[in-house]
Amino acid sequence: MDYTWLGLVAGTGVLAILFAMVVTGRINAFKVDNENVVRLSSIIQRGAMAFLYREYKALIPFVAIVAVLLGYKLGLPSAVCFLVGAVCSASTGYAGMRVATKSNGKTAFAATSGMNAALRVAFQGGSVMGMTVVGVGVIGIVAMYVLYGDPNVIASFGFGASSIALFARVGGGIYTKAADVGADLVGKVEAGIPEDDPRNPAVIADNVGDNVGDIAGMGADLFESYVNSIIAAMSVGAMIYGTAGVAYPLFLAAVGIVASILGTFFVRVKEGGDPQLALRMGLISTGALMILGTFFVTRWMFQGDLSLFWAVLGGVASGVAIGYVTEIYTSASYRPVKEIAEASNTGYATNILSGIGVGMKSAGWPVVLICAATLVGVKFGGLYGIACSAVGMLAITGMALSVDAYGPIADNAGGIAEMSGLPKTVRSITDKLDAVGNTTAAIGKGLAIGSAALTALALFVAYGQAVKLSAIDLKDPHVMVGLFIGGLLPFIFSALSIQAVGRAAQKMIDEVRRQFREIPGIMEGTAEPHYESCVDISTAAALREMVVPGLMAVIVPVLVGYFLGVHALGGLLGGSIVTGVMLAIFMSNAGGAWDNAKKYIEEGHHGGKGTPAHAAAVVGDTVGDPFKDTAGPSLNILIKLMSVVALVLAPLFI
Amino acid sequence: MDYTWLGLVAGTGVLAILFAMVVTGRINAFKVDNENVVRLSSIIQRGAMAFLYREYKALIPFVAIVAVLLGYKLGLPSAVCFLVGAVCSASTGYAGMRVATKSNGKTAFAATSGMNAALRVAFQGGSVMGMTVVGVGVIGIVAMYVLYGDPNVIASFGFGASSIALFARVGGGIYTKAADVGADLVGKVEAGIPEDDPRNPAVIADNVGDNVGDIAGMGADLFESYVNSIIAAMSVGAMIYGTAGVAYPLFLAAVGIVASILGTFFVRVKEGGDPQLALRMGLISTGALMILGTFFVTRWMFQGDLSLFWAVLGGVASGVAIGYVTEIYTSASYRPVKEIAEASNTGYATNILSGIGVGMKSAGWPVVLICAATLVGVKFGGLYGIACSAVGMLAITGMALSVDAYGPIADNAGGIAEMSGLPKTVRSITDKLDAVGNTTAAIGKGLAIGSAALTALALFVAYGQAVKLSAIDLKDPHVMVGLFIGGLLPFIFSALSIQAVGRAAQKMIDEVRRQFREIPGIMEGTAEPHYESCVDISTAAALREMVVPGLMAVIVPVLVGYFLGVHALGGLLGGSIVTGVMLAIFMSNAGGAWDNAKKYIEEGHHGGKGTPAHAAAVVGDTVGDPFKDTAGPSLNILIKLMSVVALVLAPLFI
Repeated sequence: MDYTWLGLVAGTGVLAILFAMVVTGRINAFKVDNENVVRLSSIIQRGAMAFLYREYKALIPFVAIVAVLLGYKLGLPSAVCFLVGAVCSASTGYAGMRVATKSNGKTAFAATSGMNAALRVAFQGGSVMGMTVVGVGVIGIVAMYVLYGDPNVIASFGFGASSIALFARVGGGIYTKAADVGADLVGKVEAGIPEDDPRNPAVIADNVGDNVGDIAGMGADLFESYVNSIIAAMSVGAMIYGTAGVAYPLFLAAVGIVASILGTFFVRVKEGGDPQLALRMGLISTGALMILGTFFVTRWMFQGDLSLFWAVLGGVASGVAIGYVTEIYTSASYRPVKEIAEASNTGYATNILSGIGVGMKSAGWPVVLICAATLVGVKFGGLYGIACSAVGMLAITGMALSVDAYGPIADNAGGIAEMSGLPKTVRSITDKLDAVGNTTAAIGKGLAIGSAALTALALFVAYGQAVKLSAIDLKDPHVMVGLFIGGLLPFIFSALSIQAVGRAAQKMIDEVRRQFREIPGIMEGTAEPHYESCVDISTAAALREMVVPGLMAVIVPVLVGYFLGVHALGGLLGGSIVTGVMLAIFMSNAGGAWDNAKKYIEEGHHGGKGTPAHAAAVVGDTVGDPFKDTAGPSLNILIKLMSVVALVLAPLFI
Repeated sequence: MDYTWLGLVAGTGVLAILFAMVVTGRINAFKVDNENVVRLSSIIQRGAMAFLYREYKALIPFVAIVAVLLGYKLGLPSAVCFLVGAVCSASTGYAGMRVATKSNGKTAFAATSGMNAALRVAFQGGSVMGMTVVGVGVIGIVAMYVLYGDPNVIASFGFGASSIALFARVGGGIYTKAADVGADLVGKVEAGIPEDDPRNPAVIADNVGDNVGDIAGMGADLFESYVNSIIAAMSVGAMIYGTAGVAYPLFLAAVGIVASILGTFFVRVKEGGDPQLALRMGLISTGALMILGTFFVTRWMFQGDLSLFWAVLGGVASGVAIGYVTEIYTSASYRPVKEIAEASNTGYATNILSGIGVGMKSAGWPVVLICAATLVGVKFGGLYGIACSAVGMLAITGMALSVDAYGPIADNAGGIAEMSGLPKTVRSITDKLDAVGNTTAAIGKGLAIGSAALTALALFVAYGQAVKLSAIDLKDPHVMVGLFIGGLLPFIFSALSIQAVGRAAQKMIDEVRRQFREIPGIMEGTAEPHYESCVDISTAAALREMVVPGLMAVIVPVLVGYFLGVHALGGLLGGSIVTGVMLAIFMSNAGGAWDNAKKYIEEGHHGGKGTPAHAAAVVGDTVGDPFKDTAGPSLNILIKLMSVVALVLAPLFI
């Protein structure tokens, strides 16, 4: 094997890690001169790390059993790849969250000296996560490829990453939303105290939850998307173009890393400038550099044949367009969110119905755009084109995730500012940074959903190649049965995670109500609430409730493949991709729209805070919480996990 | 062609019609000796008939244009079949609703002399609808077969029936739920007056809505299911067994009609007896007679080969089992509904989340049972077996629909009793009859959903045969794109109908609030509210809002077939069946569960009426209204309509 190009690709991965280390050093060097901030930040960090530690410990038996089974059935290489994938995913989550939970307090403190300083710290914190994910991802894949040289074996690396990601997303999502719903419904609605008020017993659990859900969960999520898109393309490419087909997606990834690192230098804001513009500049310049790089790499690798460049460009364009559509359906600047706010005037039920309607409708354009990207990919690069367009969408993960992870850091900084009694100006700066993050994150979400669909399709194609089927014929009743079962899984999965949040939230509500009732002086601020019991409720719920949906995703495809055969398993993948994508978009966007409808009313529309319209909007927001932060994003992982399970285990079913 | 057997089949259809006429005569002969009841019943009847008239008039251009296009592109027979199908569907809706709106007042009056008399009138009213649907259905199909002799041409008859059904379900569903939501939210929640209180301006619209939605809409729905299952089986059977394959489903239908007529004689209750038992006896005896008849018909037609009998039996068994599962998820006797009631204790948001979770989860077993029926059908009768098991499920429509339509009649009778000031005992009798109807209707719903899935599959198979595809390969990206678009349509369709109800309900709420505010003496009962303006709001909303979802269902398959080809259209059908079935079950059951959770609390659990838990449950019920009565049942029609459109137009896309 010629190692030069592999060294080059791995080199960009190392570069990303070095970059993350340098940035981490800078964050560490930033000193916080406020005892309260330091104390709160460290409470949150300890809570978050403790949860992550327990979560990983709980996953060890699962990982060990699967590794042994893989080794027994498919040989040592699969077991090794799976283990390394799982460990890489866990480490990126750990590293990213460690830095993020350091950055939140520093961001809050930096905000005392202005917007610019706060933006810098928060973005730096996010970029450590972003660069770690892509660096570890590329290095891991290259290492496995050097060791085993077969993309279908490396699929186990993706399997490891996906399974950790699913548990992390579901567990983190349940943790954060149980705390959030509990804190909001009793604190804000019943007791009438503001968000992040230290008198609220669930406030620490809520802030810890933001980290384990939005940071660690999202990191594992994007790590999984990133490596699986690359592995799927390598797998399909190896069949069609041999080594060149394997190398191309890795080069795209390398170009994306360089573009992302360069892009970070465009994220700068003058005092009084617009942070929105700064982040957008970072994304746009990264995207432009990525496209430029892809152009040259494609021309060089395929002797001037630019077909695949167009396939990738189609993917990137539709990903950005999906992000734009997402913004239209979830931002208060456009009609859908205003409609939900309007519907809040006539009460709870019309608010809920309106949000569900908006969410379902919002799946329309994204699905059309995914179809367009598929057709463009096929036209210019066949099935390989679809796979490459997914890689193209995700190659800028380094930057996209930096922006994504920046949001929760700013959000947490706001919470710390509130709780530690920093001046009101600080909170208004962090609020602004948070709001900016939400908007920019829409593009990231668009890329995530679009690429999930395309990656799942590519994995599906790779599966079809691996089991050597001439056709997965929909007219075959077994395929149809598979399609039904596959289509069902995202519904069951969503139901399980929503019910889990609901149950945990009910316990949290009861506990918060109990503390308000039984601890004297709690409302006057003279007695401290018992934060730990709320943290325990969230932790226990997350660890208990993540088991069934997580296992289901791994076990059902195996059972269907074993009992109904490879055709039915193909149908299952098709069905799960379709309903999974629809439900994911529906739930994510409905949740986002409800959230922003509430904020829109809080800005003073329809009477503002304290009106019945506002009360209705708060309920909508609460319903949307597990939609957008637990079930919705987990579905993106679910469909890829099932596809990668099918691909890895394909040899057993033939 | 040998007309003897066709005459025999048509004869049972004539028998059903005669039966309906005799029963109608008896209902007419029943005299109501209460002026208030007569007046109210006639107001409701006039309102309902006026709406139906306007609805049909609005559909004339659509029917005319489609007929002309069909005639132009496929020849006169298709156009004639389409027109006859549309007219048959409209007439059964008309006839059934006419009798039902006569029976409601008579049921209320009969209840003054006891449960037994009331049950008899209500069930007689429902059975006119049931028998008319099957009679007209069988006669129509036989007539078209005698005329043209080709099941693929007769598919246009199903097309006509389906398109009218979709508009009727969507229009009726929007009408009834806009009125219901408006009446409930302002009347019950805000003003605190009971259901069906004559002081509520939306009360007449609400009662009219029950008829146009639950009676006319459901009749058109089941007419469509019934004829399409038969046509699909004829179409598939003709390819495999020739005339015998065409005759078998018609014989099943004939057996079902005879069984249903005989079954009505088992519906009788002694004074003080259990009406639940009476209805169940009717269903069970009909089912038993149907199975017995199928056994002999199969043995006779296939020379002792009972394979198809097992296929049919599998269908019937899984349909009944789906009904049982439906009851578990929607009846207050079981855990899911109790969980929702429990979740209402912690407020609106947890009630909503719990209901959504229960609804999504409730899709699990029904889908598994549909898969089981499919596999059993295939094992014993190949693709034809699937089609026959759907016919088996629906053959007892005569009885199932009688029981289904009985429910809304009893419900309406209760409203009339309330408004006309009949003694409290009357209302308690009608309430009991209504509750019994709800439970027994669960089995009917199970049959409807199961048969919709199987019928859609059978139509899909017939489509595959008609376009002569060797495979509809999921690995083909065009099929996958079709699958995505098909999977999207039920979401968009649901969104449109939910938003339509939401918008109309908001208008209704504003109007009812306005009347309460502006009409002096309305709350004291000294001034009559302005019922007509509420009727107008529902009517206008229904007629306006049914257009887009209805047209979408017809136009999108045509566009996909035309622009992306027959493979993509196959994918579209597959995708729409999968998400359509899931969403239909989710929405119907979530709505039913919310409804019964509210009733459970009203019985005194969790503090009963007037508590915050009850308020939360009322909101859940309101959210569930358009789920279970507008979007959910319409989806059953949608998936079959799209399949039948594809089948009819298949020759154009080859």
